[in-house]
Amino acid sequence: MAGNSIGQVFRVTTFGESHGLALGCIVDGCPPGLEISEADLQVDLDRRRPGTSKYTTQRREPDEVKFLSGVFEGKTTGTSIGLVIENTDQRSKDYSKIADRFRPGHADYTYHQKYGHRDYRGGGRSSARETAMRVAAGAIAKKYLKQEFGIEVRCYLSQMGDVTIDKVDWDQVEQNPFFCPDESKLEALDELIRALKKEGDSIGAKLTVVANNVPVGLGEPVFDRLDADIAYALMGINAVKGVEVGDGFDVINQRGSEHRDELTPEGFKSNHAGGILGGISSGQDIVAHLALKPTSSITVPGETINVDGETVDVITKGRHDPCVGIRAVPIAEAMVAIVLMDHLLRHRAQNAGVHTTTPKI
Amino acid sequence: MAGNSIGQVFRVTTFGESHGLALGCIVDGCPPGLEISEADLQVDLDRRRPGTSKYTTQRREPDEVKFLSGVFEGKTTGTSIGLVIENTDQRSKDYSKIADRFRPGHADYTYHQKYGHRDYRGGGRSSARETAMRVAAGAIAKKYLKQEFGIEVRCYLSQMGDVTIDKVDWDQVEQNPFFCPDESKLEALDELIRALKKEGDSIGAKLTVVANNVPVGLGEPVFDRLDADIAYALMGINAVKGVEVGDGFDVINQRGSEHRDELTPEGFKSNHAGGILGGISSGQDIVAHLALKPTSSITVPGETINVDGETVDVITKGRHDPCVGIRAVPIAEAMVAIVLMDHLLRHRAQNAGVHTTTPKI
Amino acid sequence: MAGNSIGQVFRVTTFGESHGLALGCIVDGCPPGLEISEADLQVDLDRRRPGTSKYTTQRREPDEVKFLSGVFEGKTTGTSIGLVIENTDQRSKDYSKIADRFRPGHADYTYHQKYGHRDYRGGGRSSARETAMRVAAGAIAKKYLKQEFGIEVRCYLSQMGDVTIDKVDWDQVEQNPFFCPDESKLEALDELIRALKKEGDSIGAKLTVVANNVPVGLGEPVFDRLDADIAYALMGINAVKGVEVGDGFDVINQRGSEHRDELTPEGFKSNHAGGILGGISSGQDIVAHLALKPTSSITVPGETINVDGETVDVITKGRHDPCVGIRAVPIAEAMVAIVLMDHLLRHRAQNAGVHTTTPKI
Amino acid sequence: MAGNSIGQVFRVTTFGESHGLALGCIVDGCPPGLEISEADLQVDLDRRRPGTSKYTTQRREPDEVKFLSGVFEGKTTGTSIGLVIENTDQRSKDYSKIADRFRPGHADYTYHQKYGHRDYRGGGRSSARETAMRVAAGAIAKKYLKQEFGIEVRCYLSQMGDVTIDKVDWDQVEQNPFFCPDESKLEALDELIRALKKEGDSIGAKLTVVANNVPVGLGEPVFDRLDADIAYALMGINAVKGVEVGDGFDVINQRGSEHRDELTPEGFKSNHAGGILGGISSGQDIVAHLALKPTSSITVPGETINVDGETVDVITKGRHDPCVGIRAVPIAEAMVAIVLMDHLLRHRAQNAGVHTTTPKI
Repeated sequence: MAGNSIGQVFRVTTFGESHGLALGCIVDGCPPGLEISEADLQVDLDRRRPGTSKYTTQRREPDEVKFLSGVFEGKTTGTSIGLVIENTDQRSKDYSKIADRFRPGHADYTYHQKYGHRDYRGGGRSSARETAMRVAAGAIAKKYLKQEFGIEVRCYLSQMGDVTIDKVDWDQVEQNPFFCPDESKLEALDELIRALKKEGDSIGAKLTVVANNVPVGLGEPVFDRLDADIAYALMGINAVKGVEVGDGFDVINQRGSEHRDELTPEGFKSNHAGGILGGISSGQDIVAHLALKPTSSITVPGETINVDGETVDVITKGRHDPCVGIRAVPIAEAMVAIVLMDHLLRHRAQNAGVHTTTPKI
Repeated sequence: MAGNSIGQVFRVTTFGESHGLALGCIVDGCPPGLEISEADLQVDLDRRRPGTSKYTTQRREPDEVKFLSGVFEGKTTGTSIGLVIENTDQRSKDYSKIADRFRPGHADYTYHQKYGHRDYRGGGRSSARETAMRVAAGAIAKKYLKQEFGIEVRCYLSQMGDVTIDKVDWDQVEQNPFFCPDESKLEALDELIRALKKEGDSIGAKLTVVANNVPVGLGEPVFDRLDADIAYALMGINAVKGVEVGDGFDVINQRGSEHRDELTPEGFKSNHAGGILGGISSGQDIVAHLALKPTSSITVPGETINVDGETVDVITKGRHDPCVGIRAVPIAEAMVAIVLMDHLLRHRAQNAGVHTTTPKI
Repeated sequence: MAGNSIGQVFRVTTFGESHGLALGCIVDGCPPGLEISEADLQVDLDRRRPGTSKYTTQRREPDEVKFLSGVFEGKTTGTSIGLVIENTDQRSKDYSKIADRFRPGHADYTYHQKYGHRDYRGGGRSSARETAMRVAAGAIAKKYLKQEFGIEVRCYLSQMGDVTIDKVDWDQVEQNPFFCPDESKLEALDELIRALKKEGDSIGAKLTVVANNVPVGLGEPVFDRLDADIAYALMGINAVKGVEVGDGFDVINQRGSEHRDELTPEGFKSNHAGGILGGISSGQDIVAHLALKPTSSITVPGETINVDGETVDVITKGRHDPCVGIRAVPIAEAMVAIVLMDHLLRHRAQNAGVHTTTPKI
Repeated sequence: MAGNSIGQVFRVTTFGESHGLALGCIVDGCPPGLEISEADLQVDLDRRRPGTSKYTTQRREPDEVKFLSGVFEGKTTGTSIGLVIENTDQRSKDYSKIADRFRPGHADYTYHQKYGHRDYRGGGRSSARETAMRVAAGAIAKKYLKQEFGIEVRCYLSQMGDVTIDKVDWDQVEQNPFFCPDESKLEALDELIRALKKEGDSIGAKLTVVANNVPVGLGEPVFDRLDADIAYALMGINAVKGVEVGDGFDVINQRGSEHRDELTPEGFKSNHAGGILGGISSGQDIVAHLALKPTSSITVPGETINVDGETVDVITKGRHDPCVGIRAVPIAEAMVAIVLMDHLLRHRAQNAGVHTTTPKI
């Protein structure tokens, strides 16, 4: 059934396959009067775009986004915004050899079983290319959040393979193709990627998303909790296998007296909670981590079956990233921005104008 | 805005505060003709119920669930099922001392800021007591999944503090109050809990949920993915700070050639993916892990502020679990069962009767 | 699938059958801080309640509503509000004779075909008794609309059989058991009802709902239009077969030059549109009409089939209204109030704080 | 907030303004394996298209629809279907004179008040041109309904001004530009339209939609009733002011003994109910009527105000239909088809495979 939408008040619905005519999405529920241009979206699309550095795939996808509706004289009208990116560099030939077999670690098998009839070109709908539209939609959310509330949603690479990154210098993040916040780790990352390319293999990664200036009070108490919606949004990114809020899995071995963030008149003393208590934002930085698996698009031969159930070999030729985690940085930002946007508008629906003791959003 | 529902085709909406008159929920979308009785639900409610062992809180909540509608002559009618549990052992006096102050690590502060007006008795809506209704609703889903598809959703304690549990003997799980699948770890767990009680402190935990016999094909490809919905459902449980599917955070340091699950005519060779590929179930066991924080309801004094912003001390008296993770076992099962139920019905909506090459659900 | 909810931001979900233990509903999304008591709801419940005059059924249903959650110290908390009404005067014996046959004009046949297994006692879920919960939920919406925006939603009987009512004196409406706004028609209505009782037959009715002080700007432009949502809400009331907004079916023979409501600096010159243009409220009174069929619960014998497909006679004994339209007055008000409440909160979500040229809600 | 979608399991979301770059929509939830081509959609688009006869506007809009995704090798894949129609004949000059004033009877005023910032070119989002995408999406639903269930959804003109049409000859409907099922009324309709053109005025219309072969059991019992969803869908069409199911407003003066449709072993004896009982399809023809107002796009001068609140005159130049009701025929069919499609898939979700006494869908 329908399953290509995220958000309730601010809702993004996407369409498009890797090698179809175009990708597109509808952004529904954006407030009117927001100044926005295609260039605002292009910045993040370019950050996600492959072919921009030697560390990512050399496919060239210009990813030029176009507004088809919802923006008039440079401002949103409040009606639904239609966006498209035409697919130009499709080269479906590269994929023809795997049309009849299921690449292990990919969605080929599950799509085939679910739908019977699938677009096998480049992964079709399961291709990471679909995330371009999430980034485009997220850029609209990011602009609104920044302009109206001063909220910034940013992401960085916090680990790749065994290269852990602990020092966070935000100024560094956009200075290198790894979105790495620690300059001293760039060489290790470079070496790791070069070794993987030689081997034809790939590696996983961990990303950290931080949203600051988020007002207190976002999130519903039981089911549409802010942490649950962030987990949903991040786990929904291709290749993600784990999501943490705040201290995440470290809490297993923490004591209550250590984990709880004490309050003082000046604010919280710590942020083990990652900015969310009882599913509701606390006014602290929202901090989330995500783990991305190593892509299965590798040249190391693997065993699989074809549509007739026979054993066959598979090698994914073509141009692929050794670490898809890198390019997920703008996607993770976009997803968290979409969730925050939705919750901000939701919060405003319920609370504005009713009680006066709470700071208004 | 509305935020107390989970599911789209099979939808559960809950209400009720810890110390109000009653908890309740509406289960909407259950197929007609399912044989069900209150006793079917009581089994899981009793597994969640506090006061059943010396390791959990000594509050006694009989948690007797009652069908108010939707079941006629022992079978579901297909219309909405109303459920209630009356609150009997309320003792609101215990909580009166913390009405004006925000317990660190609890949702007191965020509720106060969000709503202005909050029910402070026992955490009100943020109390884990609310999860009783999730367990009740989940029991209906579990019965349907088991009966119609042979699906079982089970959960066990996989870590508490530094006590890790690797051996999984399902027969053990229900034999001890920890839901621990390894008999050899029971003594260590017992010691840990006793030490914490003495200290008045608490500890985190890790749980593992496994669903077997899940048909291939459940989950939508982009946003309503099965993994994303499981992440949403589990992160929405009180105290959860992290969720993993399959290998989870271990993927960060895996190679693609190692992570991908190869296929043979007999099936997959491994299950690093945790039974989900591209957001869609693969027919393997669904495996998910969750991390639960140590409860902040401890007697170790902490620093906080009151509603006037002044520094005050806080000690949570009352009867609390040193490890809330234990009682989350049936809750985690219920949440995953609700998600699977919703996706099974969704899948049936879209796919039945159209293409014939795919195994029908 | 799930289908017992109305509204998106302010959402009402109901449960309960005519002769089950209780009726209930969850009102989710109500802003916090609204002063509300059970007595506020009882007023409308009593207006809907049967047995209050000789013109309606003599069944006695005290319909005492109880808050189970969501209200604390006399004010809404912002969390989900649980409501129940226990069924006391059930007398299921009255209905036992029709358990195996399908009353013509009732939902017996369609429920049986849809669900296979149905609660036949008093119509089960299809009973008009279910609307008590809509009235209770609507009363919460009405109180909020009145208090925060001065909006009033009122309804009157505008026709019964061939007795048309053109004069609208709002002060009269609550003075007589017909909700008739024209005192001079009371005698004709009384005669009609008495004649029907003698014949054991029933009659249809037309109601008119008016909402005033509705701010301009409510409603979404394409699908969640205010007029479409009102049509949905009113057509969803038992027995309703037609809905009009503004001039309704009269527009078929109107000219454009006659229908369009011209604007002057003082406001609109007329209100043919019924307060809605392009799906969005214009700031004028919202005016809608609805047509209710004559109930099929009559003593005039009718022909039908039983569950085995054999021809049988049916007479609906029991205590029934000759004109169910009368009691639908508070239901129609409730439904329109729920729709307006939802749209007010929705509007606030999208628009508040963004553009400054538009009057704020 | 988000408000450009219809349907839950089969969901259509549209975007696009009258004079923007393109119109588009996403059809989400269509089952896989349905053979479909752009030509299948074009048939209905051409029926809706202006400029095809002398009775409708002479604007020429080729309305060529293009699949951007979701269809592969001539069959739906089960993923979201992206559709666009580029706007070619825009002529925004025609509308420039009315940019600063509110055309009476149009949505100019309400859009301005709601959004502050509106696309005034040709009505922007409120233009009937938006309905092209509903027709395109509806054509997909129609094809599926026809192919899988033999369901046909058809519509005809049942009244225009004072020309009533009682004889229904389905073979006639597509033979004349009025979609009139009675050949003997063509001359009267021709005269009426010619008179209106001379006067520069417009007229309302009544349409009747009939769906046959609809299985019994579609529709949810309380809120997502089939009749309520049809009312929502039809009232949501531009210019519609009234909707009836079955006998509609005639029920006001019917007796219960006359209205109820008696059952015999061979089926129902009559169809006053219009194929829906208790919100659920009865297996009879679904019959609904809708009333469309006369368009306000006329050359008869009218009084209005401009954005500064000053009195001004307004004349709608340009190329407009004297009776917009005519072109709404394929739109009404599309909307009912979308509703039926959604309910068929919903019904399948809940009911398949559970109880065996009910005919399966």
